[in-house]
Amino acid sequence: MAMEVTFLGTGTSMGIPMIGCSCATCSSLDPRDKRLRTSVWIHYNDKHVIIDSGIDFRQQALEQRIPSIDAVLFTHHHVDHIFGLDELRPINFLQNKTVIAYGTAQTKEHLKRVYPYVFEGHNCSSDVLKIEYRIFDTTPFKIDDLEIIPIPLFHGELPVMGFRLGSFAYCTDVSRMPKESYELLRDLDVLVLGALRNSPHPTHFTLSEAVEEARNINAAKTYFVHMSHELRHKKMLQQLPVNMAPAFDGLKISL
Amino acid sequence: MAMEVTFLGTGTSMGIPMIGCSCATCSSLDPRDKRLRTSVWIHYNDKHVIIDSGIDFRQQALEQRIPSIDAVLFTHHHVDHIFGLDELRPINFLQNKTVIAYGTAQTKEHLKRVYPYVFEGHNCSSDVLKIEYRIFDTTPFKIDDLEIIPIPLFHGELPVMGFRLGSFAYCTDVSRMPKESYELLRDLDVLVLGALRNSPHPTHFTLSEAVEEARNINAAKTYFVHMSHELRHKKMLQQLPVNMAPAFDGLKISL
Repeated sequence: MAMEVTFLGTGTSMGIPMIGCSCATCSSLDPRDKRLRTSVWIHYNDKHVIIDSGIDFRQQALEQRIPSIDAVLFTHHHVDHIFGLDELRPINFLQNKTVIAYGTAQTKEHLKRVYPYVFEGHNCSSDVLKIEYRIFDTTPFKIDDLEIIPIPLFHGELPVMGFRLGSFAYCTDVSRMPKESYELLRDLDVLVLGALRNSPHPTHFTLSEAVEEARNINAAKTYFVHMSHELRHKKMLQQLPVNMAPAFDGLKISL
Repeated sequence: MAMEVTFLGTGTSMGIPMIGCSCATCSSLDPRDKRLRTSVWIHYNDKHVIIDSGIDFRQQALEQRIPSIDAVLFTHHHVDHIFGLDELRPINFLQNKTVIAYGTAQTKEHLKRVYPYVFEGHNCSSDVLKIEYRIFDTTPFKIDDLEIIPIPLFHGELPVMGFRLGSFAYCTDVSRMPKESYELLRDLDVLVLGALRNSPHPTHFTLSEAVEEARNINAAKTYFVHMSHELRHKKMLQQLPVNMAPAFDGLKISL
């Protein structure tokens, strides 16, 4: 199935530039060094799916002219991945459409905590977000006729999810891959993989760890996301193996 | 005391343009019709205070080149007023500064719900936000040598707070003013007042209700904020009394 993937954001949780930072990346004039929070928009047939709805979702939707949203796939519940959920309200009101959110049972508990008025109906406003939440575990499921294969990952000690859609896979916020997940990532055309920075971090792959994982997984092409200001686009392009590259906000790939 | 106020955002909770909307305001080429979520930045002496930290805070801080933040004053806990709190982290890391958040006890409870890792210390990361939360009620308090007078307001049934700082007052998300609050708003140079739209809303003043309130309060100048796409900047300027105007993102006033 023909699928177009647009990178809505490729940055770590604080975004690049960081407020008040004057480092080479944060003050770079290369637009590829400006990174909103990590998320992708997948367009196939007439469906529009996003992976995570981060705090920048409104800005991303306006910049990339996303015409609608049918579904959100949640990797996990951290702020930079869920704070944009409420921004889907115009889809409810202007298009009279209920967005379907797919996530784990754990993510649902956190969404209920952050958005009680959405899940528990004690809303004081008629403008409240309307979503349908569908829980998945490790069993593949379908959106329309597109199969989604959940990929279990670890973000520090926190179990999070990646996704495989055909020959495309998306694994952000990861510091360890269970053995079984490698099996699910065979024969990919495109792998998207989190690579935070050069210095070690307890819950994210460094760039060199991510490169090693990418070599093991051996997709035809690997794009890195969730990058901090330690990583500058042009320098990464010069240093990375030819089948690996940093993604950048607005990059589109067709599969 | 000399004080500069910058409007960081003047829009309602969905922002203007609304995602997917093609109305005259949402497709307007007038930059004053582009509204991020309502918030102001107050600069006096060497202190930087924001009222509310909405979901657009990072974008606002970068656009307006806010050099630092010393304090956040919270009006209430709704998503469009608190979701930017986590965006203050770079102030912690780059400037080694703990931001002081001032809010009611009720706002604190909601912040604890949304940001448990900040308030309860069960953070899995060294990058966690560091704030000091100070509860206020209706008693005036001071930031440095600037007196802050809380102004009790009602946002539907929800008690929320406005603030008076010298001859400037800020009252957003309001649909009813207790009698005692009018007393606190005498002899203002500048009043900022929420005015959602033309059609009635259960928790916000309409524009005509806000104009009536502004007439009663009788500040030298009133600026309206938290405006929906029903309100177009140029048209408001043509229709409003001479001492009232819509605010717009980036507008600066000196007091």
